[in-house]
Amino acid sequence: MQTGAIQTETMQPPRGGAMIDSPFLVQLAAVIRAEDSHGLWDTKPVAELLAEFILTAEERRQTPIIGDPDPDLIWRLTKFYDAVGLMIEKRTGCMASQMQKMHHEGFGRIVLIAGRLVVVSRHLRDVHRFGFETWAKLAQAGEALVEDAVAVIGTYPDAARA
Amino acid sequence: MQTGAIQTETMQPPRGGAMIDSPFLVQLAAVIRAEDSHGLWDTKPVAELLAEFILTAEERRQTPIIGDPDPDLIWRLTKFYDAVGLMIEKRTGCMASQMQKMHHEGFGRIVLIAGRLVVVSRHLRDVHRFGFETWAKLAQAGEALVEDAVAVIGTYPDAARA
Repeated sequence: MQTGAIQTETMQPPRGGAMIDSPFLVQLAAVIRAEDSHGLWDTKPVAELLAEFILTAEERRQTPIIGDPDPDLIWRLTKFYDAVGLMIEKRTGCMASQMQKMHHEGFGRIVLIAGRLVVVSRHLRDVHRFGFETWAKLAQAGEALVEDAVAVIGTYPDAARA
Repeated sequence: MQTGAIQTETMQPPRGGAMIDSPFLVQLAAVIRAEDSHGLWDTKPVAELLAEFILTAEERRQTPIIGDPDPDLIWRLTKFYDAVGLMIEKRTGCMASQMQKMHHEGFGRIVLIAGRLVVVSRHLRDVHRFGFETWAKLAQAGEALVEDAVAVIGTYPDAARA
């Protein structure tokens, strides 16, 4: 709707900041695309496919934290940890399966298990506000979990392969 | 209602067979009693407190396995694994916490986690039919899980204490 008029508003950076090059974002996008059996999202760029993983500071403040977390949100949380699990498998060969224990109030625990080993364990609060301010933070969060898991598997390799 | 009349029916053994002396049944009864904050069940004998853990062969056949498993049944299943977890803690000092992944169709997975170690992992089918024909079988099932977990902790002691 911008015409030739003089622009008076401050330029806003794009939501989520600059898109970055990240193996984790590529993996997460692939996990989401895997749900798209009819190929309707084939042409969607990553930023559009993952748009709901971004939660700006203002959106975060406006998100109520009472009531059951939205099923879509639990779905995104699950996909995030699925992507973490797949990256762990690529790095170590250990398949990691996810289990969640979610309370209605929006706290809970998520684990990824490989063999006998808990390779990722996160206690969550404010699940209602699951989201990341920028693409860089989303990528960092996923990659940090993968790094930790790879280290844990390095410490207890036999349990991970049991 | 038995009077002096000649008894014509075959004597039935008590449901669940003879009650046995078992540390697991004592633990399971304690877990159930812990839910009784008003002490209403204080005088209930163990066989009454745990009656619903018994499922005779005929009851099993008559239990439909479609639809969501009954919440009471999931509650009993949870208490059963809580008792297993507490016995593991008594034996090893490792606190084991439970996570479930239950599908509506009545199959799923239950794990008990101590530290970084999955000390019990069971894939379940026919959750609808969770129950044991006799007290002896209930006790054996619990004690076998505890024994296995103690052995797993013995194999990976560092992961269990991580």
